[in-house]
Amino acid sequence: MSKALFFHAGCPVCVSAEQTVADALRQPVEKVHLGEVSHRVAEAESLGVKSVPALVIDGQVFHINHGADLSALK
Amino acid sequence: MSKALFFHAGCPVCVSAEQTVADALRQPVEKVHLGEVSHRVAEAESLGVKSVPALVIDGQVFHINHGADLSALK
Repeated sequence: MSKALFFHAGCPVCVSAEQTVADALRQPVEKVHLGEVSHRVAEAESLGVKSVPALVIDGQVFHINHGADLSALK
Repeated sequence: MSKALFFHAGCPVCVSAEQTVADALRQPVEKVHLGEVSHRVAEAESLGVKSVPALVIDGQVFHINHGADLSALK
């Protein structure tokens, strides 16, 4: 089973959402805080992420609610 | 473990997203097609759903991407 990726920017609401979603998924979830690892913004972008928080499962991007546009994190 | 709810409106993109998300979750997921069971729009609304597709896990609402505002389904 492939790993899921959860991109976020660290706001408390996003982190709470993240934990619920991560706990609910069968597969392991790597949480990527784009505010802390800004070099991974390009990776998120290449996967099709437009805003955070976003969940990527098997190459499919799910933009969950809306925290910030990816462009705000560059 | 409580059941998750997935509200959608039946578009092909939403159904594909729905299947990926439902398969990825540990808990059982009830899929609610609000275009077919419009009497459940009020239930979705009371849970805090603003647009579809939306996933509700343990009372937390996750608006995933954006298909349609709930108001369009009334």
